[in-house]
Amino acid sequence: MSNKLKAVFDGVSHIPEAAAPRPVNWQLEQIVGELRAARDEWRKSCGRTRELGGRELPSRQTVAEILAALCGALFPMRLGPSDLREESEDFYVGHTLDSALNALLGQVRLELHYVARQCGQREPDLEARAVQIVREFGAALPELRRLLDSDVIAAYQGDPAARSLDEVLLCYPGVQAVIHHRLAHRLYCAGVPLLARIAAEIAHSAGGIDIHPGAQIGHSFFIDHGTGVVIGETAVIGNRVRIYQAVTLGAKRFTVDESGQLLKGQARHPIVEDDVVIYAGATILGRITIGKGSTIGGNVWLTRSVPPGSNVTQATLQHQPGNAG
Amino acid sequence: MSNKLKAVFDGVSHIPEAAAPRPVNWQLEQIVGELRAARDEWRKSCGRTRELGGRELPSRQTVAEILAALCGALFPMRLGPSDLREESEDFYVGHTLDSALNALLGQVRLELHYVARQCGQREPDLEARAVQIVREFGAALPELRRLLDSDVIAAYQGDPAARSLDEVLLCYPGVQAVIHHRLAHRLYCAGVPLLARIAAEIAHSAGGIDIHPGAQIGHSFFIDHGTGVVIGETAVIGNRVRIYQAVTLGAKRFTVDESGQLLKGQARHPIVEDDVVIYAGATILGRITIGKGSTIGGNVWLTRSVPPGSNVTQATLQHQPGNAG
Amino acid sequence: MSNKLKAVFDGVSHIPEAAAPRPVNWQLEQIVGELRAARDEWRKSCGRTRELGGRELPSRQTVAEILAALCGALFPMRLGPSDLREESEDFYVGHTLDSALNALLGQVRLELHYVARQCGQREPDLEARAVQIVREFGAALPELRRLLDSDVIAAYQGDPAARSLDEVLLCYPGVQAVIHHRLAHRLYCAGVPLLARIAAEIAHSAGGIDIHPGAQIGHSFFIDHGTGVVIGETAVIGNRVRIYQAVTLGAKRFTVDESGQLLKGQARHPIVEDDVVIYAGATILGRITIGKGSTIGGNVWLTRSVPPGSNVTQATLQHQPGNAG
Amino acid sequence: MSNKLKAVFDGVSHIPEAAAPRPVNWQLEQIVGELRAARDEWRKSCGRTRELGGRELPSRQTVAEILAALCGALFPMRLGPSDLREESEDFYVGHTLDSALNALLGQVRLELHYVARQCGQREPDLEARAVQIVREFGAALPELRRLLDSDVIAAYQGDPAARSLDEVLLCYPGVQAVIHHRLAHRLYCAGVPLLARIAAEIAHSAGGIDIHPGAQIGHSFFIDHGTGVVIGETAVIGNRVRIYQAVTLGAKRFTVDESGQLLKGQARHPIVEDDVVIYAGATILGRITIGKGSTIGGNVWLTRSVPPGSNVTQATLQHQPGNAG
Amino acid sequence: MSNKLKAVFDGVSHIPEAAAPRPVNWQLEQIVGELRAARDEWRKSCGRTRELGGRELPSRQTVAEILAALCGALFPMRLGPSDLREESEDFYVGHTLDSALNALLGQVRLELHYVARQCGQREPDLEARAVQIVREFGAALPELRRLLDSDVIAAYQGDPAARSLDEVLLCYPGVQAVIHHRLAHRLYCAGVPLLARIAAEIAHSAGGIDIHPGAQIGHSFFIDHGTGVVIGETAVIGNRVRIYQAVTLGAKRFTVDESGQLLKGQARHPIVEDDVVIYAGATILGRITIGKGSTIGGNVWLTRSVPPGSNVTQATLQHQPGNAG
Amino acid sequence: MSNKLKAVFDGVSHIPEAAAPRPVNWQLEQIVGELRAARDEWRKSCGRTRELGGRELPSRQTVAEILAALCGALFPMRLGPSDLREESEDFYVGHTLDSALNALLGQVRLELHYVARQCGQREPDLEARAVQIVREFGAALPELRRLLDSDVIAAYQGDPAARSLDEVLLCYPGVQAVIHHRLAHRLYCAGVPLLARIAAEIAHSAGGIDIHPGAQIGHSFFIDHGTGVVIGETAVIGNRVRIYQAVTLGAKRFTVDESGQLLKGQARHPIVEDDVVIYAGATILGRITIGKGSTIGGNVWLTRSVPPGSNVTQATLQHQPGNAG
Repeated sequence: MSNKLKAVFDGVSHIPEAAAPRPVNWQLEQIVGELRAARDEWRKSCGRTRELGGRELPSRQTVAEILAALCGALFPMRLGPSDLREESEDFYVGHTLDSALNALLGQVRLELHYVARQCGQREPDLEARAVQIVREFGAALPELRRLLDSDVIAAYQGDPAARSLDEVLLCYPGVQAVIHHRLAHRLYCAGVPLLARIAAEIAHSAGGIDIHPGAQIGHSFFIDHGTGVVIGETAVIGNRVRIYQAVTLGAKRFTVDESGQLLKGQARHPIVEDDVVIYAGATILGRITIGKGSTIGGNVWLTRSVPPGSNVTQATLQHQPGNAG
Repeated sequence: MSNKLKAVFDGVSHIPEAAAPRPVNWQLEQIVGELRAARDEWRKSCGRTRELGGRELPSRQTVAEILAALCGALFPMRLGPSDLREESEDFYVGHTLDSALNALLGQVRLELHYVARQCGQREPDLEARAVQIVREFGAALPELRRLLDSDVIAAYQGDPAARSLDEVLLCYPGVQAVIHHRLAHRLYCAGVPLLARIAAEIAHSAGGIDIHPGAQIGHSFFIDHGTGVVIGETAVIGNRVRIYQAVTLGAKRFTVDESGQLLKGQARHPIVEDDVVIYAGATILGRITIGKGSTIGGNVWLTRSVPPGSNVTQATLQHQPGNAG
Repeated sequence: MSNKLKAVFDGVSHIPEAAAPRPVNWQLEQIVGELRAARDEWRKSCGRTRELGGRELPSRQTVAEILAALCGALFPMRLGPSDLREESEDFYVGHTLDSALNALLGQVRLELHYVARQCGQREPDLEARAVQIVREFGAALPELRRLLDSDVIAAYQGDPAARSLDEVLLCYPGVQAVIHHRLAHRLYCAGVPLLARIAAEIAHSAGGIDIHPGAQIGHSFFIDHGTGVVIGETAVIGNRVRIYQAVTLGAKRFTVDESGQLLKGQARHPIVEDDVVIYAGATILGRITIGKGSTIGGNVWLTRSVPPGSNVTQATLQHQPGNAG
Repeated sequence: MSNKLKAVFDGVSHIPEAAAPRPVNWQLEQIVGELRAARDEWRKSCGRTRELGGRELPSRQTVAEILAALCGALFPMRLGPSDLREESEDFYVGHTLDSALNALLGQVRLELHYVARQCGQREPDLEARAVQIVREFGAALPELRRLLDSDVIAAYQGDPAARSLDEVLLCYPGVQAVIHHRLAHRLYCAGVPLLARIAAEIAHSAGGIDIHPGAQIGHSFFIDHGTGVVIGETAVIGNRVRIYQAVTLGAKRFTVDESGQLLKGQARHPIVEDDVVIYAGATILGRITIGKGSTIGGNVWLTRSVPPGSNVTQATLQHQPGNAG
Repeated sequence: MSNKLKAVFDGVSHIPEAAAPRPVNWQLEQIVGELRAARDEWRKSCGRTRELGGRELPSRQTVAEILAALCGALFPMRLGPSDLREESEDFYVGHTLDSALNALLGQVRLELHYVARQCGQREPDLEARAVQIVREFGAALPELRRLLDSDVIAAYQGDPAARSLDEVLLCYPGVQAVIHHRLAHRLYCAGVPLLARIAAEIAHSAGGIDIHPGAQIGHSFFIDHGTGVVIGETAVIGNRVRIYQAVTLGAKRFTVDESGQLLKGQARHPIVEDDVVIYAGATILGRITIGKGSTIGGNVWLTRSVPPGSNVTQATLQHQPGNAG
Repeated sequence: MSNKLKAVFDGVSHIPEAAAPRPVNWQLEQIVGELRAARDEWRKSCGRTRELGGRELPSRQTVAEILAALCGALFPMRLGPSDLREESEDFYVGHTLDSALNALLGQVRLELHYVARQCGQREPDLEARAVQIVREFGAALPELRRLLDSDVIAAYQGDPAARSLDEVLLCYPGVQAVIHHRLAHRLYCAGVPLLARIAAEIAHSAGGIDIHPGAQIGHSFFIDHGTGVVIGETAVIGNRVRIYQAVTLGAKRFTVDESGQLLKGQARHPIVEDDVVIYAGATILGRITIGKGSTIGGNVWLTRSVPPGSNVTQATLQHQPGNAG
């Protein structure tokens, strides 16, 4: 029995014997009019004039489809279609990449047009720039694949419960988040930050891991469990770093600056050097540096730099505040 | 690559570099207004006042889903889901019938309400009647299955190209048309002729075989090839009848009656007795009787009765018009 | 249980216990290479050079969606969504028209580009022409609706089995074919004959009625049953004409012209004047005229004009070949 | 607004205010029991014992998907996905072929198992045979493509209304039917006639053209309009043949043989030699031969051979029965 | 290649050559019987008698569709369909609202019926109340839109990484959560708390933000990152409040009351006054008040009220527990 | 307007008037080649030789469908299809179980084959073992249902905001997570840990609750809110335990062992005895025991055992580290 049939029946079967149905009127004309008035007010307050024209924003649904296609092209035998065999691996990769890159070109165009419209300027080379962005993005995929291989190995080595590399790639939400982040970060660097942000939010919604696409992350990166992790826009993470659920690499914003406005675009998130491990729930805030090889304990609240090789725990902080290293 | 992705891309990829898009205006307000005026005229001409209320007509989509479910319940191992095994046959049949009969109840209600509204009368027992129609329809299904078994055997025996009973049930458009007709005929007899007609048109569209749900058809009936067959509302067909593609059992309407109006509801289609064979393209018109055991040749045009055992061919008609028997 | 689940299971459950699966190799590289060679040959034979670029042909799926949307906008309470109520009729019509016209604009562009490429010429006003075609198409819809109302009434009056106007609009394949034809004919006249042809074939496939979009048809037109009807490109049909299943209004092409080539674009199909009735299976060929008010009998084969008021039957033709009129 | 939402609402909105819903009982236990009894009777009458095990018949839905994929692989730029570009043509062809051939392998297995079960015999090489069938089918595709190119050209040359080869391939139901037939015929010859028949019926249902997969058809074949065409299992058609709608190439079966049983498997349909044209509605029955270059007129009823170069019309047959040539 | 095809193939391709499949039997009759027994026990333990009748609970799927439609109607150019243009904005809004409100009416009926059944009482005005709830809900949408505009602006101003209002509305999970909460809260206040809870859980599942629909929240509310936020049923939040991920506004329940039962329905969650900022991971429990303009630091654990203008940090609490203000 | 239509239009409508589109070339051959080289490197580094053969890993999509079907079979009137009535409850349960168990058999086969391939050994009884695993899984469902009933009651009793058992089952993410965990745990114990892990990750992604399928959990278990909960592989939880959001029952891994390798498979997560309550954000690490009836306060960080009846809060830990009990 199809879903459609069920849906159609839903509610029909329990109609009691009764008089003819009474027509209902929702006063739609009035609601529609008032909603239009609210939109007009909003547009006026934003300084937008009412203009004919389409929505012209990238589509989350389309970006999700592109990401899924790219995952399949990067890891064809494990994230591609289940009927894939090695004989046709390259055919699949080529065909999928073509569709994905073409669709990406369409989304890149939409973002570039959108930005140009907001700036009120006409950009003559917009089309050429869109093509170049996508071409460079495509050319970088093999390097990305190698980087991701290092992450998969790091995940396998970092979790005693992992039984195989395939399990890691199929199941681990942290690995999925890193794949999405590395793709999103490329888009961010290529000059389409809105697409990058949409890609990041797709991963955030799926696994509860919130990595801003601007964050720079080295190879062999592993997030275990992952729910609640937040990594900010200007964070810099070295190689072989491992973090656990609910870790925050955020900005420290306890004081407000004089003009009452938050400054945008400044480096404000931590630098985490190579070989650092950060346990669950640790909160690390501000442009501080966690030195190479340090271990940060669970639930630690850290707002100042620590030298290489530090072992910071809650106890350390509470009882010996001066010598975390 | 999903269809969605392809569709989204469709047309996006070939946007040339260019100026900002020019907004298009379809003058929708005006078209919508004129269409409303046309609808108002129509309603006035039909004597309908503008009234709030829903569409309240049965849905072709829903009827199609109900028919597909009933086909599965009648022939679970051949028309049911491909994962069905005999251990769960009854579970499947019971679950599917329940959904199908509930959904049918909804559609029967819609037709009874529709008729009551058109007559301008309130019918207090409408709900009870709807339930009774569906309950009797359900109770008749086992008998229907036995009747259809006779049709399947007739198809297998009647076509030298048939290799197995399963092939007949899976592939033959004539068999599919007869299954749908027997279900539609039940609905017709039960007092929901609009649902019956919708069911018949679903079969017509799928296989090009147009059997009015009012036609009465005996057991072991077989239509071969079938495209273009037309069987009228008041046709009566006996047992073990076999007909081929493009056969018409129609009404003869060469002369118009005095008032200039076509009379409705009268017996106006042929009676075909037991064991008759009618070859491709034969056109048989009017309330005439084709006697038991007759054979009607291809492309024959026949408008008068023939006695049992007749063998009518084009040649017979053309050269010996008086003694077809 | 969802279809997906069933499909996945299909075939999985009966894998016998056994050795490890033996890999299969289809020699894909070779087949793909040979298919490319075949395509290259074909392109060379057509004088096409291999060029990068997309398919750029209109899409049958998209045209089908546009037609369904237009049917809903033309008859909202009967062919629109089943949850529609009169309070929101205009909202639905406006929203649906907007989407349908925008999508049509995309398809019109594709056809105009395609033609321009085939002609090897650049057309500077292509975009403006596409917009104009769609705008005029939209503006003509109210008039089309009135024309279709005349067809619906003709169907109701012409069939003794019809019980209501709603049944006619919901069920009659002839009515659906006429709606599609009138839309397709508009496109044909507007200069997008490929879109028109696709629209016509969608109707042909659904109901077995094959009307070339070039055919000109007057108001109050009714096709009963319809399977097998063929109406040619240059046919001209008057008002209040009624035809039955398997009627052909075709070209007469028994003799081949001198150069051995079939001439294209000439008037070569019949003219059927007002108030003519043509019964099932009649074949009418060539640029002949069926005079006003004539009746053409079933299975008649007619290749010359008949004066107004003629009553042509097979018998007439066979026994009194000289005075059909 | 999604279809789901509409469907859910369908029927919900007009529930009148009323008492609590009255539960309905369909006596499902009884109906299910009676249907099981009917199935048991049927199985006993067919000599089948009740056995656990799945349906194990090929699936029409799957065959349809395979055919659609093969059409795309054969004509990638015209029947493949609309986002295809020449750069990725081979990737698409290879990937699609792989999926289609793998899926076909599954269906071939099902038919071979089914036949083996029916014969009550175990076949040790069944898997190897299945793989061989599919491998040879795949290897034959390039040759098939060349054959189909000849058909496309024949269609373009044969119809004065055709404007381009692309229009022919996109729109003509006759061309679609021939593509499907050539694929189905390969399956028929390879020893999977049930799959072949399912493929043929898919084409029959879509375009009203009924070609048995056993029919042998030469190159440059064209069916115009096509609704109602029937071509039988043992028909043999030469090169450059053109036929129109409602033509039948059938078996002549007016007399029954002595044992009262129809003989199966014998050559019983016409042989149509090269360069023959058969106009609409012609019925040609029995193992007769239509000589090279003949023309058969519309609605002709022909049951004996005609020599090369014949020009047979209805008139010829009726008035000069002796010298059709 | 469609998903369906892939799914069908999934698992079929690797069937090894082998003996005929061995039938499997799951002992379904026994499992089904035992599950029925478990259900009967459960019902008996709940005091429910076995009664015929449908499920009659609101559907999560339908509520999700309604919410998506309402989001589109509230922000047509940014959350509506991507093909929307300003010319047809009102058509879209009106049509979408109509469908959404009608579907909502169906769900409201189901909840009211469900509650009436549970109470064992017949409610004569149930239908009228359902219509009134939906009508008032519809009428409140324009005001809701204005409230949401304030939230969008607050998000833009509160996050240094935000580049535009459109990015905020498209990407920010906190903004999506607030839109859903404001709709759910309306339903909660209107007397359909089960629908409200379903709506809240849809948002919770999508973004990891768990706001009970009973919570009262002022204008210009912003949640950044958001994963792990929990806001309880009786929480009261003022205007211009900003909170970060993993903040809990919960009940304090360390001690159990005398009768051993948790009291239901009492005010037990915090009151957060205007202009408060609460940083990530802060846990605020019990019916305490956070005074206007206070700042609560990350990971703070707070179970007593603080006066306006307080600046509470972990350090404050640990080292100077007496003077948080 | 269907989604498809919208999607097709997406991007088409704003194509500006312009020159013919410029073909784009992505250098696909090169990217595909480099990706192949990266895969080859990876395989070599893993010691895998390039071999023909399919993906042969279980499918997350299929596991999700199986879980949804099992939820419906376990709680038919609340999690089954909305059209279900008690008359057909058993039919639905039997049919759904059959499909789900058959599909599960397919997935179990894939995992067993995968493991056998990895070990490089042929297992003769693999099929028999797969069938036995599924049969025992099916037989255990009634007991599972009783266990889940205890969880539902625990949720209702443990949350003052819960209004009915139906609300708990429909809405509570914690209840959904426990249903999925109990099913996943059965699979884990049955010897298919990869399927178990996939099932667990489906629940993790939907509700943010990460329970390793190896964890042993007693009856009447309740997780409130739940986002961020992590429960490790070797955790053991008694009866009537209640935990809140962001609680971690993890491994303590501050020190690395001598060989520098993490040991796998050892008991390393906490034992939580009966009647324990653990409030939000508590982190409990290592193979310690939380004694019967203890209460662990919010945000507590605990790495050593506590005796029965302990009441541990942050304050306790900080100020009186020696006497947590």
